[in-house]
Amino acid sequence: MTDADTAHKLKMERRKQVQEQRLAERDRKKGLLIVHTGDGKGKSSAAFGMVFRSLGHGLPVAVIQFIKGAWEPGEAKLLGRFPELVVFRAMGEGFTWETQDRERDIAKASEAWKAGLELILAGRHHIVLLDEINVAMKLGYLDPNQVLAGLARKPEMVHVVLTGRGAPEGIIEAADLVTEMKLVKHPFRSQGIKAQLGIEY
Amino acid sequence: MTDADTAHKLKMERRKQVQEQRLAERDRKKGLLIVHTGDGKGKSSAAFGMVFRSLGHGLPVAVIQFIKGAWEPGEAKLLGRFPELVVFRAMGEGFTWETQDRERDIAKASEAWKAGLELILAGRHHIVLLDEINVAMKLGYLDPNQVLAGLARKPEMVHVVLTGRGAPEGIIEAADLVTEMKLVKHPFRSQGIKAQLGIEY
Repeated sequence: MTDADTAHKLKMERRKQVQEQRLAERDRKKGLLIVHTGDGKGKSSAAFGMVFRSLGHGLPVAVIQFIKGAWEPGEAKLLGRFPELVVFRAMGEGFTWETQDRERDIAKASEAWKAGLELILAGRHHIVLLDEINVAMKLGYLDPNQVLAGLARKPEMVHVVLTGRGAPEGIIEAADLVTEMKLVKHPFRSQGIKAQLGIEY
Repeated sequence: MTDADTAHKLKMERRKQVQEQRLAERDRKKGLLIVHTGDGKGKSSAAFGMVFRSLGHGLPVAVIQFIKGAWEPGEAKLLGRFPELVVFRAMGEGFTWETQDRERDIAKASEAWKAGLELILAGRHHIVLLDEINVAMKLGYLDPNQVLAGLARKPEMVHVVLTGRGAPEGIIEAADLVTEMKLVKHPFRSQGIKAQLGIEY
């Protein structure tokens, strides 16, 4: 064995010990408040990844879409294959620059939040995903304080995931786990490539 | 209508025009090289989200896992429900501080890349996900130049997704779409909470 190999082996042995120690110290389980925000891609995809992972384990999941795109998403099709485990409701009405009706957007966001909160409080689902709710708060369609007051009543073991750019400060403070998806490079802008099946929708 | 409403309406009308103009300019379709990197969570989840979205559309997908965790992931269980559309191979051997055998890790990474490249070149899958391949390159188990040379031969319409922290600079330069998942807040460190079913695995 070379010196480099020996050094590597020692380093890895130490790392293994640290890792095991860390895992032993983490023994709490609780439902998390998870936030995916930032200008990059992958906020909703990562949330749906968790939803599908839970489905893989046979756990029930609920998804409320606060902003519905113009296309029928692949996620909805796949969720439709598991009717016994899934509640899925697309309640938004597209982005404001499509609906051109602020009052209606506010009413829709409020309805969607009411439906989401009911699902959370019922405690029957492993994960409740409130997709694009951050955008609804950012655009002023939904009061973050109202959302925080509702989330404070969350049953201990329910995981709640909030996605969308521009998550309000109070939401980030209240969250257990926050990831910012940061745009490093995007082909739409630099190469004129359009949204593609399976990638964006 | 109040002045604020009118101003909002005008702003949204302008935004709608800009949005439509942008969409009209984007008419290219091509298979993308997508990278998810950074220290935050959601890199693999977002990639699996795209994989599941494609499955929702009935498109075939392939997944190679370069680093296999200690647990049976929920993703594998769900992918197993679609044998006609999915190729899934877990080829890694855990993290190095678990295997404690650098030579073996290098051999495994090389095998996994060979399998991944074959799938890419075959062009039969809408997406080929090389999960955690960035870590294999970062740890020196796999040469980024070898990977770049292989990716240069990618068929036009195949999307390839590379995940894992520490993506090498050359990979980022070659990619069409790069997202950095940035850790803002993590409950493992601050609250002593362990990895949980459906959330981490």
